[in-house]
Amino acid sequence: MSKMKGLKCKECGKTYPAAALHVCEFCFGPLEVSYNYDYIKTKITKEKILQGPKSLWRYQDLLPIEGEPTVGLNAGFTPMIHAKNLGAELGLDYLYLKNDTVNCLTLSFKDRVVAVALTRAKELGFDTVACASTGNLANSVSAHAAEARLRCFVFIPADLEAGKVLGNLIYRPNVVAVNGNYDDVNRLCSEIAGEYSWAFVNINIRPYYSEGSKTLAYEAMEQLGWRTPDHVVVPIASGSLLTKISKGFNEFADLGFVSPVKTQIHGAQAEGCSPVAAAFKEKRDFIKPVKPKTIAKSLAIGNPADGFYAVKVVLASGGVIEHVTDEEVVEGMTLLARTEGVFAETAGGVTIGVLKKLAKKGLFRKGESVVAYITGNGLKTQEAVAPALGVPWNIQPSLANFQEALKAASADTSNKERGVQ
Amino acid sequence: MSKMKGLKCKECGKTYPAAALHVCEFCFGPLEVSYNYDYIKTKITKEKILQGPKSLWRYQDLLPIEGEPTVGLNAGFTPMIHAKNLGAELGLDYLYLKNDTVNCLTLSFKDRVVAVALTRAKELGFDTVACASTGNLANSVSAHAAEARLRCFVFIPADLEAGKVLGNLIYRPNVVAVNGNYDDVNRLCSEIAGEYSWAFVNINIRPYYSEGSKTLAYEAMEQLGWRTPDHVVVPIASGSLLTKISKGFNEFADLGFVSPVKTQIHGAQAEGCSPVAAAFKEKRDFIKPVKPKTIAKSLAIGNPADGFYAVKVVLASGGVIEHVTDEEVVEGMTLLARTEGVFAETAGGVTIGVLKKLAKKGLFRKGESVVAYITGNGLKTQEAVAPALGVPWNIQPSLANFQEALKAASADTSNKERGVQ
Repeated sequence: MSKMKGLKCKECGKTYPAAALHVCEFCFGPLEVSYNYDYIKTKITKEKILQGPKSLWRYQDLLPIEGEPTVGLNAGFTPMIHAKNLGAELGLDYLYLKNDTVNCLTLSFKDRVVAVALTRAKELGFDTVACASTGNLANSVSAHAAEARLRCFVFIPADLEAGKVLGNLIYRPNVVAVNGNYDDVNRLCSEIAGEYSWAFVNINIRPYYSEGSKTLAYEAMEQLGWRTPDHVVVPIASGSLLTKISKGFNEFADLGFVSPVKTQIHGAQAEGCSPVAAAFKEKRDFIKPVKPKTIAKSLAIGNPADGFYAVKVVLASGGVIEHVTDEEVVEGMTLLARTEGVFAETAGGVTIGVLKKLAKKGLFRKGESVVAYITGNGLKTQEAVAPALGVPWNIQPSLANFQEALKAASADTSNKERGVQ
Repeated sequence: MSKMKGLKCKECGKTYPAAALHVCEFCFGPLEVSYNYDYIKTKITKEKILQGPKSLWRYQDLLPIEGEPTVGLNAGFTPMIHAKNLGAELGLDYLYLKNDTVNCLTLSFKDRVVAVALTRAKELGFDTVACASTGNLANSVSAHAAEARLRCFVFIPADLEAGKVLGNLIYRPNVVAVNGNYDDVNRLCSEIAGEYSWAFVNINIRPYYSEGSKTLAYEAMEQLGWRTPDHVVVPIASGSLLTKISKGFNEFADLGFVSPVKTQIHGAQAEGCSPVAAAFKEKRDFIKPVKPKTIAKSLAIGNPADGFYAVKVVLASGGVIEHVTDEEVVEGMTLLARTEGVFAETAGGVTIGVLKKLAKKGLFRKGESVVAYITGNGLKTQEAVAPALGVPWNIQPSLANFQEALKAASADTSNKERGVQ
């Protein structure tokens, strides 16, 4: 008996072996891992989880690998912050931030999916890993491929943020900058995946890879004291993250670890790339691809693979999908930093921007808990926020000079929030 | 009874209350926290530590706060990596990396000292916190002051790396860029500390602040299975970190948590700012201040406050202090990244550069364990390493274009390490 039965088409239900496959050859639907939950139930307990490693591998029994984890042993189990300051500004008593800005190795939630994908890729015998990426995924694949001594190719849009480009090169993978947007990169990678026997983590390994995101739900429930939150706000790029968080909640409920799930799942997009939010608002059951134009580059997927499923999940949960402007993204980033000391990348600004919008609309009732997923670190997207931050005071190294500057700053009412006086 | 007796001069032994004091008014020696270890022994156990929070606060009984922690609740307890790839390159079977590049909130070991300092500053009734910083400390003070809703002033050299400047501004503190080096900044801050009733974390709060570094020793021992390593390699800026790591080892031994300490403590500096390494090599018992000139800006303290004590600790342990050139710093950063997937800042490059030098010299014997302290994240010092990393391949989004690029890259022998072929 094994925890994985194999793969199964999400549309027609046809089954496949647990190999490097991702599309149903009959109906072209996406394949998902099919688990043997009866077997898993005999293995997993809360106590075992509590005694497990301080990483996402404490949930190993629910992750699609056959043996022991071999890559990304420190990924996941990031802090959950009770955000009292931000909560006070938004009128929320029970606001929590899931802080993946300090994920290991590369400061984004992608370390979760990559830990699972590369462990599985090694089990399947691959010696080369690759990905199409908006940045964070490439950083994580590059780092973990270095750790795992795998050959590595990462494909990124050529206009990516400097920190994300350097955050690949440092690990010495083969970095391919493609003149085009993410959707062009993704199309190219699908072609390349057909030609070479490489493990493209988000193409032919995608059924395993995407399951890593479930751990963002498991950890939230465990860290809230084995409870599901009343609301979550999740950024949407491909849509996969959101659907897997929902799946994680339901799995824990099915195992009896938490009460039946009533969590309202809300999606967040940037206005300049909001095909999923648009489908939700227009009550369409299909996604109209768009050409992305937003500073939230990590979410800039114009033709999101799981957008359709994300809409379904949000609707079923009673949630909404909202979008914010680039200005609101920057405002969200600074709001989060100045209230909670968390420096998130643009995607975090999208999440906080939408959170604020939903709070203003009165969507959250008194006493309800809200978890906002902060999925990446702001040091990777410095150019997006730098123009809004001004510059330091500049002084000579003398007390008199400092006191002059202090006096000038005190007189400047724009400094009030910093409490200069 | 309380765990803190008060403060005590490291030189003449005169005692003081546990207030915001840092210099002995009789002999001008530095003050240290004096603990009531007999009392602590009745409180602390390994079991209690194991059941404690997944942060440095699991060692609360050995940290200089009176009540419960209130700031930086997620700081510390970072991963310890068994670095098998890097170890293989250096001939070390038991090389471990203490990975503070993912420390919470701000990706450096400074989150440890700031969590302790700000909790203590609040206990002492301060409403304003400040620091003199080479960058990481300012980032951490800014973030934690935001979290703690304290007014904040951070003082930095004006030529700091862009990521470290932005990594202050985002939290909306008062950032003061001083035209001068760190030693100028530090002198100025000592003057300012005399004029204003602010908690300067590394000046008048320094006795409490510096104790936070002990947790890097506690965690190493716990993560190695309650053992002290045979060797540690520690970067030296002010020298405080190194002395406190030593203190942490000895405290655990005195408590009976580990065997008597035989750890050889080695110090690492950059050639362009190596006053402590110079004193060690020249067998001097005093530090000759230098004007720093190195890319390792976070270690660029020309007149290190605890340099003298660092030399004493290293000598007593049978260790050495070594320095590396800026080229070796960059080589250390890329070596670490391509073997272990860890992207460290320049200080990490110094540590790995020195580690490599010591390994080549045959300092580590077969079977011995070595812990290298990786104290900050490479996304903060991108300009130091960017020129050495080249650029991505740049292609049009077509399979033919990719295959051409792949062919060209395969023919280029400089790509061999990436295994393009």
